[in-house]
Amino acid sequence: MRARDLACDFPTVTVDTPVYDAARLLAEQDLPGLIVVDGRGLPVTILPGTQVLRLAVPGYCQDDPALARVVDEAHADRFLHALAGRTVREALPAQPRELPITAPDATVLELAALMARTHSPLVAVVSDGALLGAVTLQALLDRAVAA
Amino acid sequence: MRARDLACDFPTVTVDTPVYDAARLLAEQDLPGLIVVDGRGLPVTILPGTQVLRLAVPGYCQDDPALARVVDEAHADRFLHALAGRTVREALPAQPRELPITAPDATVLELAALMARTHSPLVAVVSDGALLGAVTLQALLDRAVAA
Repeated sequence: MRARDLACDFPTVTVDTPVYDAARLLAEQDLPGLIVVDGRGLPVTILPGTQVLRLAVPGYCQDDPALARVVDEAHADRFLHALAGRTVREALPAQPRELPITAPDATVLELAALMARTHSPLVAVVSDGALLGAVTLQALLDRAVAA
Repeated sequence: MRARDLACDFPTVTVDTPVYDAARLLAEQDLPGLIVVDGRGLPVTILPGTQVLRLAVPGYCQDDPALARVVDEAHADRFLHALAGRTVREALPAQPRELPITAPDATVLELAALMARTHSPLVAVVSDGALLGAVTLQALLDRAVAA
């Protein structure tokens, strides 16, 4: 079992996608994260779901629980809308050390170690300069449990 | 909208649960992570799915991609079974700085900031020394998109 056998088609966004649309895609398609691609369709970064959420949380609330607490309930409920028009580009976090991107011949164990190391429930599979698809934590676990 | 309104019943494991059973629970119930509870039912730690996977990846493969690569495909496929009998206690990672645990009156924004900060798609809601349930990233996004 290799990455190529586990990879599925996966929706992508670009750096020009509004943050709200990215969050809606994640919610509506029940995705574990998003792949951000460049103009050639190659992954620029992979965002686990929690980090898509991070794009949508105002900077002053991210690291200080006390500041998130002073926003009243009605405004807190609509936090996604407060960022109308803001794109993924403007909200991208500092590039992580290692991206969850691998080659088609990666084994199940390599995929598992990569997901664990990068805290990403989603690994992009790239071959010859093209995105083949993605392996999700769920797909990996389903096969590992059945093995 | 508060944490208490979004919290749902959520399966728990203990430190005595075998790692294989924890991984199977995650796979079969399509959970974003697991809550590890003590004898009184209170959360000891919350493990995002990728960190449950980490429990199951041999230590020597976790941080060195080259070492994961030398394990042949047949053994890699069965990596979960190689840890038969190992419990969650033996595999728990060093305690993270902040756990994704909150009170029932946390707002949607506080929940979002906590998930982003702790990289956890799962927040445990605790009140008066009892686990009320958990809020998942998916439940949070569904409400935030609809708000």
